[in-house]
Amino acid sequence: MLSKSQISLLKSLQHKRERRQHGLFLVEGYKSVVEFINSPYQIEAVYHTASFDPKVLKLSQKINLYEISVSDVEKISSLKTPQEVIALVKIPAWPTLDNAKLKQKFTLVLDGIQDPGNMGTIVRTADWFGIKNIICSDDTVDAYNPKVVQASMGSLSRINIYYVDLVDILPKTGLPIFGALLNGENIYQTNFGTGGLIVMGNEGNGIRPEVESLVTKSVTIPRVGEAESLNVAIAVAIFCSEINRNSHNNVGSQ
Amino acid sequence: MLSKSQISLLKSLQHKRERRQHGLFLVEGYKSVVEFINSPYQIEAVYHTASFDPKVLKLSQKINLYEISVSDVEKISSLKTPQEVIALVKIPAWPTLDNAKLKQKFTLVLDGIQDPGNMGTIVRTADWFGIKNIICSDDTVDAYNPKVVQASMGSLSRINIYYVDLVDILPKTGLPIFGALLNGENIYQTNFGTGGLIVMGNEGNGIRPEVESLVTKSVTIPRVGEAESLNVAIAVAIFCSEINRNSHNNVGSQ
Repeated sequence: MLSKSQISLLKSLQHKRERRQHGLFLVEGYKSVVEFINSPYQIEAVYHTASFDPKVLKLSQKINLYEISVSDVEKISSLKTPQEVIALVKIPAWPTLDNAKLKQKFTLVLDGIQDPGNMGTIVRTADWFGIKNIICSDDTVDAYNPKVVQASMGSLSRINIYYVDLVDILPKTGLPIFGALLNGENIYQTNFGTGGLIVMGNEGNGIRPEVESLVTKSVTIPRVGEAESLNVAIAVAIFCSEINRNSHNNVGSQ
Repeated sequence: MLSKSQISLLKSLQHKRERRQHGLFLVEGYKSVVEFINSPYQIEAVYHTASFDPKVLKLSQKINLYEISVSDVEKISSLKTPQEVIALVKIPAWPTLDNAKLKQKFTLVLDGIQDPGNMGTIVRTADWFGIKNIICSDDTVDAYNPKVVQASMGSLSRINIYYVDLVDILPKTGLPIFGALLNGENIYQTNFGTGGLIVMGNEGNGIRPEVESLVTKSVTIPRVGEAESLNVAIAVAIFCSEINRNSHNNVGSQ
C-alpha cells in the first residue's frame, strides 16, 4: 500500500523537472524491469501487483520489493495499459565524456530530437547494432521520459547517453563527423572507416547550422520514390546498418 | 458551421467500422491534405478554419470547401494539436491484385502489423524507396486509421495497399518470397534479384507459421549488440535500403 505522498512522487516522475529533481525515473513492464535489474543501474524499489510473482525476476541482489494494488499501479503508470511490475530506478551521474573511449567506435549524435518514440527507437536500434554511446544536444528529449523508456524496450539500460553542448564538445573529440544531410555523398559509396560520430538532426528542421558547420562529411540516403523525407529513427537505422555492413564485409568470410 | 450529425459522422471516422461503412476517412494537416489533393484519391470535402487561406491549396479542380470553427475542428480531429485544415477523402475500391504488375518490382507484405505508428512509418519508408504496393494480412491495422495517415506524412496517397488472405494470395504471385526471420541468410550477402515479396511479421510474434511456410528465402539482419529485436518499421527500412543499394550498385556509376 502506497501513501498518498509516495503516489504523488512516483506519478510526478512523468515530468522531466521532477525526474531531475529527485534523480529518479520509472521503468514499466517485466521485460524492461529485468533488463534494468541486470544492468549497472541502481534499482531503488520494485512495485508489483498481487498477480505478479517476483520470483520470476530471479533477484540475486537485495532489492526493495513492494506489493501494491492494481489501482495504485494505474495511478503511477504512464501507460494506457499499465503493467504488473514497475521499477523505480536512479538516474546515473554520467562520467565526463571520454574522447579516448570513442575512438575506433561509432557514436550517434542527436541534434534536437523531440519525439520520445523516435528517441526510444533510436536507442533500441543503436543497441542492436552495438553502438554504446549516444551524445545528445541539451534540447534533445530526455532519455528517461516514460515514452522513451517504453520504446527503447530495455535497451536504455545498456547505452550511455550524454547531454552536452554539441558546438563545444564535438570538435574536442578529434573524430570524423558524418552528418545525415541532403546533397551529401551517397551513403552506399561512403567509407565510414573504423570510427566516428554520426550526426542526425531534428525531425522538422534537421541539423542546426552551427552543428552542420562542424560536419566533416555530409552523407545522404538516396531517394528512389517520392516521400519528402525519412523518419529520423529510420535514417538512424540505415546509417547503423551501412556501418555494420561495412565492418561485416571487412572482417567477414563472405 | 457543421451540424451535429455532420460532426458526429466525421468524428466517427476515427473508428474502422465507421470508415468502412461510409467508405470515408480524414486527412489532417496542410502538407498531407495537399498530397491527397494531388493524388488519384477522391476528395469529398475540405474543412478549414478562418485562419487558413484555402488559396494556398492551389486547387485546380472543384472541391467542396467549408470554413468551420476551431471548436468544430477540435471535435472532429484525432490529434492532440488539431490542424487548420482537414480533408474528407473517399476510400478507393482497390482493383484486384495484378500479379503481372508485381514482377520486376519489390512489394512489402505485412503479416499482422498492429501499431498504427509503425504502419504509417512503413508506408512513408516504402514511398521513399520507390515501393508502390503493400500487401497486408486481413488483420493488419487499417491503413486509414488516423494515426497511420498521420505517421505516413502524405505517402499513403501514393502507395497501393491491399488487404488479403496471405496464405491464399502469396503462392499465386509466383514471385520469390523473402521473409524477415531469425537464423536466415545474412541480409548483407543476400541476392534479392530484380523483384519479389518481402514479408515482415507482427511486432510481438513475427511471421505466423502458415505464412512462414510460404517463404522461399529467410533473411536476417545480423545483430552486433544486445537488443532482443528490432522495431518492425526499422527492419522494413533496412530491407528497403539493402534492395535499393543492390539495385543502385547494379546500375550506378560508382
